[in-house]
Amino acid sequence: MKHAPLVDQLINAFTCLPGVGPRSAQRMAYSLLDRGREQGRRLAEALQAAMDGVEHCARCRNYAEAELCPVCEDPKRDASLVCIVSTPADVLAFEQSGEYRGQYFVLMGELSPLDGIGPRELGLDVLEQRLREGQINELILATGTTVEGEATAHYVLDLAQETGVRVSRIAQGVPMGGDLEFVDGATLAQALRGRRLFE
Amino acid sequence: MKHAPLVDQLINAFTCLPGVGPRSAQRMAYSLLDRGREQGRRLAEALQAAMDGVEHCARCRNYAEAELCPVCEDPKRDASLVCIVSTPADVLAFEQSGEYRGQYFVLMGELSPLDGIGPRELGLDVLEQRLREGQINELILATGTTVEGEATAHYVLDLAQETGVRVSRIAQGVPMGGDLEFVDGATLAQALRGRRLFE
Repeated sequence: MKHAPLVDQLINAFTCLPGVGPRSAQRMAYSLLDRGREQGRRLAEALQAAMDGVEHCARCRNYAEAELCPVCEDPKRDASLVCIVSTPADVLAFEQSGEYRGQYFVLMGELSPLDGIGPRELGLDVLEQRLREGQINELILATGTTVEGEATAHYVLDLAQETGVRVSRIAQGVPMGGDLEFVDGATLAQALRGRRLFE
Repeated sequence: MKHAPLVDQLINAFTCLPGVGPRSAQRMAYSLLDRGREQGRRLAEALQAAMDGVEHCARCRNYAEAELCPVCEDPKRDASLVCIVSTPADVLAFEQSGEYRGQYFVLMGELSPLDGIGPRELGLDVLEQRLREGQINELILATGTTVEGEATAHYVLDLAQETGVRVSRIAQGVPMGGDLEFVDGATLAQALRGRRLFE
């Protein structure tokens, strides 16, 4: 004999979440059953609504509930400036900085041939199309600084140069407001290479 | 600007789960949106079904989908032997041992006055009632060996003695199949105190 079948089904279903094994799945199920039925129902509704209602923006590939996401739809954003990022979380980070008034192109991943993630999976054929249309003045590369992020950035750089679009890369260096002693060697080396002379 | 509203709602809803902060909630939402819509829908359905359909067994308080749980309903189980455990997971552990043919009483917690968990929250008034009815021959204490578990066991011991029902406690000692060097001192001391003479 096991749990009541509905409890077992719930525990099993939780293990589809990243980082959730049988133990934590059991803890989650018990927690909702014991003290959080209302929260559990809300989670069920939020899941259903998101699974059915969230699509990708036809222009930038970010999550969207209409054909275009709020950024692409906003006439005040500069459509000639496009920042290439890997995930929706990166868009969020840029938006929270309050600095950026251009648009984005969200790859929803990074090149990883061994996992079957090639240019097409990242929508780079769509990006190439847009680059050829000639409405983009500058492409800003802001993928991660991992091996996959760098490889992806190089691929996009090649695309942009083929189509004659200006490309830049966000600065790499020491983060703001931290003690130098806690910055790793690779970052410091990068910061040195990227140093700027006072004018 | 933030995520699409449905994505934000989903991330928020995930944070109601134990051990899930904003970061992991975001990771869960992305994972389902990117690669697991079907799993997400299944989780939503499992949640809805469990939140609506799981009740507590009227006899033992374990999770049940009918008035009685499968154990309490099973005529082959010995109803005169009742094992007191703290959680449904403990019932599972006993059932998996394949040793036990009696019934259970699941406290769904342990005494913890500072958190407002007293005898009534653990259904101990119901247990007292059942003890007085005179159909239970032996009560087996199997709450945890934490402070709260011990306090709860003592409380139930008093109840049983007041009502004249025989009480036992599962043996405490070294676990099977382990090297002694990895057993903690408190367990070893308990194992020594509980030693049995060969007959």
